[in-house]
Amino acid sequence: MKVFVINSGSSSIKYQLFEMPSAKTICSGLVERIGLEESIITHKIFTDGKDEVIKKNLEINDHAEGLREVNALLTDATIGVIKDTDEIEVVGHRVVHGGEQFAVTTVISHAVKEQIKKLFPLAPLHNPANYLGIDVAENIFAKAKQVAVFDTAFHQTMPEVAFRYAIPSDFYYTHGIRAYGFHGTSHKYVSEQAAEYLNNKAAKIITIHLGNGCSIAAIENGKCVDTSMGLGPMNGLIMGTRCGDIDQSVIFHLVNQLGYDLDQVNNVLNKKSGMVGLTGFSDMRDITSELDKGNKNAKLAYDLYAYRIRKYIGMYTAVLNGLDAIVFTAGVGENDALTRRLATQHLEYLGISLDEEKNKQRLKGIHEINTADSSVKILVIPTNEELEIARQCYKLLN
Amino acid sequence: MKVFVINSGSSSIKYQLFEMPSAKTICSGLVERIGLEESIITHKIFTDGKDEVIKKNLEINDHAEGLREVNALLTDATIGVIKDTDEIEVVGHRVVHGGEQFAVTTVISHAVKEQIKKLFPLAPLHNPANYLGIDVAENIFAKAKQVAVFDTAFHQTMPEVAFRYAIPSDFYYTHGIRAYGFHGTSHKYVSEQAAEYLNNKAAKIITIHLGNGCSIAAIENGKCVDTSMGLGPMNGLIMGTRCGDIDQSVIFHLVNQLGYDLDQVNNVLNKKSGMVGLTGFSDMRDITSELDKGNKNAKLAYDLYAYRIRKYIGMYTAVLNGLDAIVFTAGVGENDALTRRLATQHLEYLGISLDEEKNKQRLKGIHEINTADSSVKILVIPTNEELEIARQCYKLLN
Repeated sequence: MKVFVINSGSSSIKYQLFEMPSAKTICSGLVERIGLEESIITHKIFTDGKDEVIKKNLEINDHAEGLREVNALLTDATIGVIKDTDEIEVVGHRVVHGGEQFAVTTVISHAVKEQIKKLFPLAPLHNPANYLGIDVAENIFAKAKQVAVFDTAFHQTMPEVAFRYAIPSDFYYTHGIRAYGFHGTSHKYVSEQAAEYLNNKAAKIITIHLGNGCSIAAIENGKCVDTSMGLGPMNGLIMGTRCGDIDQSVIFHLVNQLGYDLDQVNNVLNKKSGMVGLTGFSDMRDITSELDKGNKNAKLAYDLYAYRIRKYIGMYTAVLNGLDAIVFTAGVGENDALTRRLATQHLEYLGISLDEEKNKQRLKGIHEINTADSSVKILVIPTNEELEIARQCYKLLN
Repeated sequence: MKVFVINSGSSSIKYQLFEMPSAKTICSGLVERIGLEESIITHKIFTDGKDEVIKKNLEINDHAEGLREVNALLTDATIGVIKDTDEIEVVGHRVVHGGEQFAVTTVISHAVKEQIKKLFPLAPLHNPANYLGIDVAENIFAKAKQVAVFDTAFHQTMPEVAFRYAIPSDFYYTHGIRAYGFHGTSHKYVSEQAAEYLNNKAAKIITIHLGNGCSIAAIENGKCVDTSMGLGPMNGLIMGTRCGDIDQSVIFHLVNQLGYDLDQVNNVLNKKSGMVGLTGFSDMRDITSELDKGNKNAKLAYDLYAYRIRKYIGMYTAVLNGLDAIVFTAGVGENDALTRRLATQHLEYLGISLDEEKNKQRLKGIHEINTADSSVKILVIPTNEELEIARQCYKLLN
């Protein structure tokens, strides 16, 4: 079964074609700068033995044009990977916000689309773009089943104590204001890999997704019981450009005492804070290189970043009343040894012990970086959200 | 030495007269509704064997008039406790915000007053009232030394990782935006009592101040290393009317999606949230009584309140890399057995074990409520911020 996975952003479409259940990636790509000058398609074909990359610069005015170009590449007489569009049986869409309505992967109907639309106020930056991707795909891949995989779904098992805020109850009952959590597809994928590796379905696991966005989740019996992101994807851990947890008084202070307007504050906390706000760089590799040069801001930023993770490890160990494994995943989590070292130090009270040498090795696939006598496993597990979407689509339809 | 302690609010003056170093309270009282209709003074005199309470309803237009009335009561020919105002050698003022300038108790000079004034933007509700109290006391108690005891001072030992936010560094360097923490006088007082009780100056202690305002602090070697309140006194634990920690996205959502103005949001989060927002009641005794009647909102509110404390216990145990004792203090902490039970349950991974019977007993003074085999002591310690202010004044001047 061929499953085509789409992640539609406001000016981009990321895609990947899988053969399921073998999980082989047939091709993948990215359409960028839709509706802007100098649009680009980068298309990668994975064939046995050799991979091929095609770059096309062309005018792409909207998502429909973008996806039509992708379809043309997929079915091209020379470089095509399928003969006919209809070979694609399922299109799996990443949808950021599923609210409380969608706790599982769902076949998209007219009613489902209407629900996704109703959730626009909760994810004004993401859901409209995801919706547009669905709309366009329904026309181009007309014979395929369209399926939605929600970034919030995995966190829907959280108990009320974890997702409610201490604000008047009406905000929850009438307006759905609560913590939803994000990166659910990634947390689900790596926690399942970890449980399998540990051979323990009931394991108490903390999964730490450190990409440009960062979040952490407490998982027991394969279910999420708490997570760091809330109503939106801005709080919790420190991120590339987002501040993570901050005293909300700062917002009132910036507006009432320093004269900022609220949109400026929102922009600062979302786009100019986190690692970029502390160092001027948002990419961890740049910050590591600054650290090596003795840059004090880079040192402080690393310390803050790791201290926040360490506090959450302590907090979620209390939530779980114990801990079997910590999982690092996503760009920084998989590749940055220093973050892993700083985030797991001074936790001897939990019997956590990192193997410094194993931590420094760059290995592919799931690997263990704790010492033999550590009470808690520390695992590095590469995430693969696209594959997880394809797997969920396949599972749902078989 | 007679030390007169003043806590000056926007329309009230709370006061207490101590004989030091014996720490005997000579009298205490409260001037309420200053500048409003029907002002009241409640004045309590503590004499060996019998206490006396005097209530006076009169017109009090400003803080100067209020303090003059108090002075008249102190020196009254029949009920007075001193013959002459000048017997008071020290006036100790509670000042909420000391910024980074004041890490210790300080004799008030013109320069100190100017500094306190400069901190108005950081504590716009409290510092102006505290300043006014100083101004007025300087005139009435003209021969006494005026001393400021800052609510933030004890937390000034926090390391940079604990007090910095992940926002552009300039907000800290230019505008002092960082976590300061509050209730410092209470956390200092009870943590010193606990260290003495444990006979361990280096003890790792978590102090939990649960009054109408609530905060929690991690303390090691007698020094605060982290605390839950930040730039202002609104985040961290859930409080009587304040929300505590909340995703800052909620603020942008309420304004941008639901049409609130920012002052309304500030008012909701400060005055209509927390326990009152969840149940309609801000006093824990009312909520307990609702709980007994089967009120589901009261149940949820209690669970949320305790879950937040439990998460912080886990977090600060990670910060301290271990834990010797938990201290409950202030109105709810000292009196509400249910809160203590819920907040310390499911923490077996730390060896924490509450003695249910001991927890239910209502004892005076410091007492231990853990089981004999608990790895962590759980202590109830009555706080006394006024006495702590008097002690610090006495210590500073002797």
